[in-house]
Amino acid sequence: MINIAVVGYGYWGPNLVRNFSEVRGARVAAVVDSDTEKLAIVNRRYPGVTTTTRLQDVLADSSIDAIAIATPVHTHYELGLAGLMAGKHVWIEKPMAETSVQALRLLDEAERRRRVLIVDHTFIYTGAVRKMAEIIRGGELGRVYYYDSIRVNLGLFQRDVSVISDLAVHDFSILDHLLDEKVGAVSASGTNHFPGAPENLAYITLFYDSGTIAHVNVSWLAPVKVRQILVGGSRKMITYDDVEPSEKVKVYDKGVSFTDDPKQIYQMRVGYRTGDMWAPKLDVTEALQVEGAHFVDCIDHGTKPQTDGRLGLRVVELIEAATNSMRRKGETVYMQRQEQAA
Amino acid sequence: MINIAVVGYGYWGPNLVRNFSEVRGARVAAVVDSDTEKLAIVNRRYPGVTTTTRLQDVLADSSIDAIAIATPVHTHYELGLAGLMAGKHVWIEKPMAETSVQALRLLDEAERRRRVLIVDHTFIYTGAVRKMAEIIRGGELGRVYYYDSIRVNLGLFQRDVSVISDLAVHDFSILDHLLDEKVGAVSASGTNHFPGAPENLAYITLFYDSGTIAHVNVSWLAPVKVRQILVGGSRKMITYDDVEPSEKVKVYDKGVSFTDDPKQIYQMRVGYRTGDMWAPKLDVTEALQVEGAHFVDCIDHGTKPQTDGRLGLRVVELIEAATNSMRRKGETVYMQRQEQAA
Amino acid sequence: MINIAVVGYGYWGPNLVRNFSEVRGARVAAVVDSDTEKLAIVNRRYPGVTTTTRLQDVLADSSIDAIAIATPVHTHYELGLAGLMAGKHVWIEKPMAETSVQALRLLDEAERRRRVLIVDHTFIYTGAVRKMAEIIRGGELGRVYYYDSIRVNLGLFQRDVSVISDLAVHDFSILDHLLDEKVGAVSASGTNHFPGAPENLAYITLFYDSGTIAHVNVSWLAPVKVRQILVGGSRKMITYDDVEPSEKVKVYDKGVSFTDDPKQIYQMRVGYRTGDMWAPKLDVTEALQVEGAHFVDCIDHGTKPQTDGRLGLRVVELIEAATNSMRRKGETVYMQRQEQAA
Amino acid sequence: MINIAVVGYGYWGPNLVRNFSEVRGARVAAVVDSDTEKLAIVNRRYPGVTTTTRLQDVLADSSIDAIAIATPVHTHYELGLAGLMAGKHVWIEKPMAETSVQALRLLDEAERRRRVLIVDHTFIYTGAVRKMAEIIRGGELGRVYYYDSIRVNLGLFQRDVSVISDLAVHDFSILDHLLDEKVGAVSASGTNHFPGAPENLAYITLFYDSGTIAHVNVSWLAPVKVRQILVGGSRKMITYDDVEPSEKVKVYDKGVSFTDDPKQIYQMRVGYRTGDMWAPKLDVTEALQVEGAHFVDCIDHGTKPQTDGRLGLRVVELIEAATNSMRRKGETVYMQRQEQAA
Repeated sequence: MINIAVVGYGYWGPNLVRNFSEVRGARVAAVVDSDTEKLAIVNRRYPGVTTTTRLQDVLADSSIDAIAIATPVHTHYELGLAGLMAGKHVWIEKPMAETSVQALRLLDEAERRRRVLIVDHTFIYTGAVRKMAEIIRGGELGRVYYYDSIRVNLGLFQRDVSVISDLAVHDFSILDHLLDEKVGAVSASGTNHFPGAPENLAYITLFYDSGTIAHVNVSWLAPVKVRQILVGGSRKMITYDDVEPSEKVKVYDKGVSFTDDPKQIYQMRVGYRTGDMWAPKLDVTEALQVEGAHFVDCIDHGTKPQTDGRLGLRVVELIEAATNSMRRKGETVYMQRQEQAA
Repeated sequence: MINIAVVGYGYWGPNLVRNFSEVRGARVAAVVDSDTEKLAIVNRRYPGVTTTTRLQDVLADSSIDAIAIATPVHTHYELGLAGLMAGKHVWIEKPMAETSVQALRLLDEAERRRRVLIVDHTFIYTGAVRKMAEIIRGGELGRVYYYDSIRVNLGLFQRDVSVISDLAVHDFSILDHLLDEKVGAVSASGTNHFPGAPENLAYITLFYDSGTIAHVNVSWLAPVKVRQILVGGSRKMITYDDVEPSEKVKVYDKGVSFTDDPKQIYQMRVGYRTGDMWAPKLDVTEALQVEGAHFVDCIDHGTKPQTDGRLGLRVVELIEAATNSMRRKGETVYMQRQEQAA
Repeated sequence: MINIAVVGYGYWGPNLVRNFSEVRGARVAAVVDSDTEKLAIVNRRYPGVTTTTRLQDVLADSSIDAIAIATPVHTHYELGLAGLMAGKHVWIEKPMAETSVQALRLLDEAERRRRVLIVDHTFIYTGAVRKMAEIIRGGELGRVYYYDSIRVNLGLFQRDVSVISDLAVHDFSILDHLLDEKVGAVSASGTNHFPGAPENLAYITLFYDSGTIAHVNVSWLAPVKVRQILVGGSRKMITYDDVEPSEKVKVYDKGVSFTDDPKQIYQMRVGYRTGDMWAPKLDVTEALQVEGAHFVDCIDHGTKPQTDGRLGLRVVELIEAATNSMRRKGETVYMQRQEQAA
Repeated sequence: MINIAVVGYGYWGPNLVRNFSEVRGARVAAVVDSDTEKLAIVNRRYPGVTTTTRLQDVLADSSIDAIAIATPVHTHYELGLAGLMAGKHVWIEKPMAETSVQALRLLDEAERRRRVLIVDHTFIYTGAVRKMAEIIRGGELGRVYYYDSIRVNLGLFQRDVSVISDLAVHDFSILDHLLDEKVGAVSASGTNHFPGAPENLAYITLFYDSGTIAHVNVSWLAPVKVRQILVGGSRKMITYDDVEPSEKVKVYDKGVSFTDDPKQIYQMRVGYRTGDMWAPKLDVTEALQVEGAHFVDCIDHGTKPQTDGRLGLRVVELIEAATNSMRRKGETVYMQRQEQAA
């Protein structure tokens, strides 16, 4: 039985407590929050859970195996490091840290101490993304030409992080999971329409050396909610519409075929191909349940999570690169990886 | 009665002939094409129309008032200039020329000779865009925060022009028509997935000095057809979905309101506002009919068309800038206008 | 403060307990269920609520003002009557009873004892139906020509009631609320595809003497979920799509206009009219909250609820009539009202 | 080469002329219409086609092999019979006649004279219906539980035929084509909202002895256009949405499974099954082209068309039965077939 302390009982913490309460092999042993009113809610809802305002209490408690950090981003590094140094396994919300230097430090600490460090990139554990990964890795799409995501709605404006950290972060993790290749360069543009606030819309292009191109359009200021991803391959193409109540993922037997004959290339003879469309059945288990069970399993077997610190670091690097490019009106930023440096 | 010669009877020419045949005050007097088989089709369909393989025949014919050029882009400049120099009014397909230098030359020639030069940016004459212009110019949207367009499908790959010239050109003209302001800078990315072919997908961001930002996502390689424009303003927002058979344009009384109080900005207190949605009735007259009648009217009254050579030039400048940026992975390109130079 | 006992803690009871816990002026004093395991859940979730397996305990408790009955339909009559005879106000799930004779008896008892009897036809309290009622009663639609509802999905097969009692019941209550007129006659068809089970799909037509016609298509055996109502009037038309996440209700300025000139009727000259579409903002307060507050208000002021026993009776009469017609392959059944008899 | 005379150049006739002009093995030899202005249009468009106001001219012309009748319904019988008696093959618009007695007479005449009689139930020749037939006949759906069609829009009000003849006729022919079984009984309701006009909306239920049930909802008075068919089977279910530009037909691996164990039936234990969805590629050849080629092929080989006079007769019988039931508010009408009598 893995004993978990949830740190932070604000927006997301209650979901973690509820979720870990239902994961086989785990239990929520404690909740930490600086706000005693929130702890009072925990006491009422979960009489058996210990509550405290002092992180030190759970770090010093040897019966606690792991901490789950659901606090604001700027505290992730300090809390995560403290947890690891106290020998705990760590679950950390996305993005894992404010900077790639911090993320690398967390990752190193986890690896040196052989602790499990999982970053909560929840989308990776959805039935939709798992099915897409199965299709793409199985080769059904052929070579991946592009990934195109739109993730916009009238969203909660945040004061400390931009829309890239809030929304594009999902696509960065999904891309890392779906593709075998790492990003080579980034160009982004975006703006804040309100002085002093973080950017509320952004457009990010990711370039891969193989020629694959990815584009992410995120906004907190759209009149309609759109969550649509297109992935185009040399053999098939996928759409993933997360707003649809069912048939979220569709696979189209559609594409173009070019001849390789140099003479014909001059003619640009393109053959269009349209065939069946197929919407595979998706596992509808709640992603957080899948991820919680995976975390426990990694602790039990000493294995790496699918969304480990390395994936978390690469996502933070992309947020940094995209933000740098965006603030210079699209200037290309080439990826220099902390991970490689380490 | 305005006598028009249509030059080029390939893909678009037949639409022009059919269209001008129905415009009051105009008639198609001649069709020019180098392919005699195409001219034979014209003879069969329109026994009263003269056909010829030699442009010179119509330029020398003083009964011809205007020529309409529907040939490949690389011939627009030469043919258009010949027409203007022969004293004809000129209708020219979009984009009006391959380079802004050519476009400026055409524009100057038309102005000096007081001939009407119209560029066939058809979208400007649709009921949808006309209604959007009415709403935006009337101030109903408030300050325009952004314009976001997606224009993708499994499209005809072209061999001589990229997807920017083929599809983004529509958004460049619509933006020029809707907004009072000219573009300040451009950042674009894109790629060709087939060696030797023009770019088949592109993402273009347009920056305006006022803070308005526009983004255009175009592709010939998408499994589904999307034609969706969002325009967000400080008071209302618009969606324009051209794939919908009806209610294409919707106006949402939705938005966010920020306080200007500097103390509260720190708190990022955002008020969300959602109200009614309204889909105005749109004029369903075929855009080409509206445009054809407008051309005749401009000739009759010596007035400027809504899509005159200046608008056409600005669109070509944007194609150039976007293409330059795209080929340098998003590097910012600041607009230096030929028009201003002139 | 109104003290309420919820009777039945199965599928719907928990919603009632949660809901009444949040209604100002009311509190859940007790929960009754024959299953002690369910009562144990109540004890855990709501330590302050009394639980009992004996209805008599709450009927005999003079501090209990009202009971809310959320048990199977065949028990509604007996439990409702017991509550009223004990002097309690009664909230009863839909349909209010198995037969119109029972429904009339409940209604009479409530009126004689001056108790509030509310039937939980929740839809009447949704923002969508309230807005439709406002529009129709305000005359904006003109004369109502028809009401057409489709309410199908792969639904839970029930063993004791047919799809008419389960789904068409919603439309019967909505129609009663929207229209000033009572149904004159009914024709229905339907079938059960599984021997021994109740009918799982049904088509019901309701005829009104004024010429208004209503049709309801309900099924538990559809591959897709559809919840769409059309209401056509002489001036405007409404669509209400409850599956849409937003803009559920749309008002179309569309219609046909006929001349009344008898000579022209021979010519059938129809003028089509299409204008704007308008999606009014809807109140998104949970319907059960609105209804709970309304119940308390009716008790406090001794007024009739919008979904009182008379409406509940008329709905049961329609279920009876539709079922009779359905079992005779569509034979017309004329409404003979118990209410009028009473 | 089959020489065809098209009779009637009103709404549909021009489509037939255009269509037969492109069918290999056929040519339009003559057009008959009482309106000389319409014939003038034919002369202009098709200089090689003979025009005449007298049907007798083409009936007497031995070089004419077939006539295609596109005139108002009330003239079908007389014209069709004249054609057959003159030894011509006959193509006739739907419905084939005003009464089943007339339809039977036409059918008999064609069979006795060994002429091809095809009724233009165009839907049968669409890629969508052909694919559905392939799936249903191939047994993929299992036993067919129901067919449910909605066919509504703001349509052209007709003065001589009701919405049943205009729209439900499509479903009657599709059902006849898809199912192996003939209709046993009919119940219909409907109304005309305008005095003296034919019924403008109707709801028709068709009962089959096997337990299959079909329902058709047709209206000329809906604010939105809906063309949706659901077909539910014991193994799979189909949706066919003709308004969608692509993926019109979808096959759902969804359903319920009941146990046959009588003990369990009491428990109504239903197992739900949801699996993949699949949208097969459809042939997009214009249906009229397919049908035209089929007509020529039947003439050449002396075979029966898929939409022969017998199918046409059964459709007319259903129109009669549905109309009779509708005018008696849903009273069941049992099918007594003329065909069997014959």
